[in-house]
Amino acid sequence: MARTIVIVGTLDTKGEEIGFIRDFIEQKGHKALIVDGGITGSVPFAPDISRDEVAGAAGKTLAEIVSLGNEGAAIATMADGAAKIVHTLYNARSVDAIIGVGGSMGTSLGLAAMKHLPVGFPKLMVSTIAFTPLVTVDTMAMDQMMMQSPVDLWGLNVVTRRILESAAAAIVGMAEASERIVVEKPLVAITTRGILKYVNWIKPMLEERGYEVVVIHAVGMVGGKTLETVARHKMLCSVLDLCIGEVIEELNGGALRAGSDRLEAAGQMGIPQIVAPGSMEFWHWPGSVDTAPKDRKLHIHNPLVLGVKATTEEMVQAARTVAEKLNRAKGPVTFLFPLLGFDAHDQPGGAFYDPEGRAGFLAALKAAAGPNIKLVELNLHINDKAFADEVVSEFDKVIAGSPSCQTQ
Amino acid sequence: MARTIVIVGTLDTKGEEIGFIRDFIEQKGHKALIVDGGITGSVPFAPDISRDEVAGAAGKTLAEIVSLGNEGAAIATMADGAAKIVHTLYNARSVDAIIGVGGSMGTSLGLAAMKHLPVGFPKLMVSTIAFTPLVTVDTMAMDQMMMQSPVDLWGLNVVTRRILESAAAAIVGMAEASERIVVEKPLVAITTRGILKYVNWIKPMLEERGYEVVVIHAVGMVGGKTLETVARHKMLCSVLDLCIGEVIEELNGGALRAGSDRLEAAGQMGIPQIVAPGSMEFWHWPGSVDTAPKDRKLHIHNPLVLGVKATTEEMVQAARTVAEKLNRAKGPVTFLFPLLGFDAHDQPGGAFYDPEGRAGFLAALKAAAGPNIKLVELNLHINDKAFADEVVSEFDKVIAGSPSCQTQ
Repeated sequence: MARTIVIVGTLDTKGEEIGFIRDFIEQKGHKALIVDGGITGSVPFAPDISRDEVAGAAGKTLAEIVSLGNEGAAIATMADGAAKIVHTLYNARSVDAIIGVGGSMGTSLGLAAMKHLPVGFPKLMVSTIAFTPLVTVDTMAMDQMMMQSPVDLWGLNVVTRRILESAAAAIVGMAEASERIVVEKPLVAITTRGILKYVNWIKPMLEERGYEVVVIHAVGMVGGKTLETVARHKMLCSVLDLCIGEVIEELNGGALRAGSDRLEAAGQMGIPQIVAPGSMEFWHWPGSVDTAPKDRKLHIHNPLVLGVKATTEEMVQAARTVAEKLNRAKGPVTFLFPLLGFDAHDQPGGAFYDPEGRAGFLAALKAAAGPNIKLVELNLHINDKAFADEVVSEFDKVIAGSPSCQTQ
Repeated sequence: MARTIVIVGTLDTKGEEIGFIRDFIEQKGHKALIVDGGITGSVPFAPDISRDEVAGAAGKTLAEIVSLGNEGAAIATMADGAAKIVHTLYNARSVDAIIGVGGSMGTSLGLAAMKHLPVGFPKLMVSTIAFTPLVTVDTMAMDQMMMQSPVDLWGLNVVTRRILESAAAAIVGMAEASERIVVEKPLVAITTRGILKYVNWIKPMLEERGYEVVVIHAVGMVGGKTLETVARHKMLCSVLDLCIGEVIEELNGGALRAGSDRLEAAGQMGIPQIVAPGSMEFWHWPGSVDTAPKDRKLHIHNPLVLGVKATTEEMVQAARTVAEKLNRAKGPVTFLFPLLGFDAHDQPGGAFYDPEGRAGFLAALKAAAGPNIKLVELNLHINDKAFADEVVSEFDKVIAGSPSCQTQ
């Protein structure tokens, strides 16, 4: 079946490259739909969606965009227009995949057009700056595919032809296999980290009950941020948010921040959630070991991952923030509190063992939690098998009242 | 034609994911060749290359690797073994593409297996940490393709199935289109940056003469570092290394460093080179604007790209380093010196205009350059059309004595 693949780029500077990808796609029997985000310079051939149409989708004329006099602002406006066009095509089920090609300007254009397309929709950016610090994770889609061009995209040569052919072949392969995700079994998300064990028990127990389990590695922008996005896409029937350490990261400028709206999406969408304070006794230093505070307990996981013990005050503040977020939830919330420890570091002999901090967290949580939060204190460590059993037992109770969580 | 695709990963933790990709590949009529880099845990099915064979390729037994007692060192050794096996397969022309799948351990394993495979050979890593700071550009192949898994790879579910299917479809598409790069026209590489203009003139002049031109954006590890690697792969007949700013970056800890061996590969391989001091009057600050030295001239290209004017002393040191590197070249070297300026910043009214620094650079270069270097002073700015004409004129002379640079 012929598929339609969007190519987004700037025809004035990358016309040869875009034409090469188009030809490959058409030779494979598919349709290429070129969206031109270029601003100045001449166009070697007519695209399917012109720069004027892209500017128009952003609510401007091309002349207005050029008159911004700032290349960065201009490309951001064109990116906005391109993204709107691509979303309209997606919603009309008129496209099956998207590929972008560019240097620094084309990359920002292409990534913007891809960023908010749903998970599972094939999206590939071929870029000369794919893995430089110029491209940050917050500019990308959650399931972004990126290909580094080893040489500059400055016309076709024996190297760029091979790279572009490979990229075109990849997007054609993906377009041919492209399917929208259809959730058949009710889907439950669990957040965790390597220092937490409950998934090993909870996952098979839920699967036996007929659920599918998505595991979220709660490590920031590619972790808890994903949970928030997937929840907003209405894919989840329940959230077991048992590792919410990204909240304390956010409050203290930690390296694993997932944005200020972490722990909010499930509540906003009314999705039943069971929450626990996994990894809420520390956060990650965003610099090298030698710049870390000398007066804190530290845990060096590897040279890039450096845990810093939170103070009781920081933990109290985190508890208040957690309560404030959960108080606003539109769905049921159960908070399971493992009195004996928050992760493998927080146990006798562990790097961050802290009964006092835990007690401070609990007191603050109790004081700030509204009546919608069911708070259950368990005389267990979060890594005990019995804790996992309690989570599943609570899950069984909570989802009894949730139609979207019923299995066949 | 059936193709062979290597799948590299750890069967103990990613068995389901690897099996899923294998099944997709086989359903498309191709052969999957599984290389298991796992160390502990049980194996759900037998791979084509076992963990014992991988350990053996690294010159160890699996027991020796386990007894290292350090997960990082163990996976590095397995990565070394996997890379050796993959290279043997490549050299025997037994493989057409490689895909890796993993979390942080599997990603380090997969990237190591891919890193030294030639440019143009399809290489895709599906990773839960693709765009985190844990993955740095020096761990990747020059034309690496990476796909971010939006959720943890912890068994199959409706999300991971779609992601893995898309990835498998991409690598199958690339394998089907896979060809080794065959250089038909003599290939000339030119280094440049956005503040340099000569490529606009030189490229068409060389193409008229029957050459192919590869443009290298000299911005560090994905820039000049590539030139060095491509030169070592014997793909180039001549190098026009007219933007060597990465040398002064390296000396001063700049953000656009390309390694300490920059400006050496062409010389080592005996490739004729024409060199000019493009962008040798400044380097890039590796931190934010507020941490930059207050006593230097600065140029903010964008919030991430901050130029710092080099002192005359730094320029003199750079000239000595350049001379020392070029003195060791086994092929002909011409150094074209544009007396009126090194790039668009170094002209009257420019942010880094510096006749004094340039004079210091020239004097130091003259003092340190050996007899093999032909040094030509030109009363031109590097962005003058006449400078580009001089480069091409010199190229015509130099390649007259170079059999690999003769066009049909």
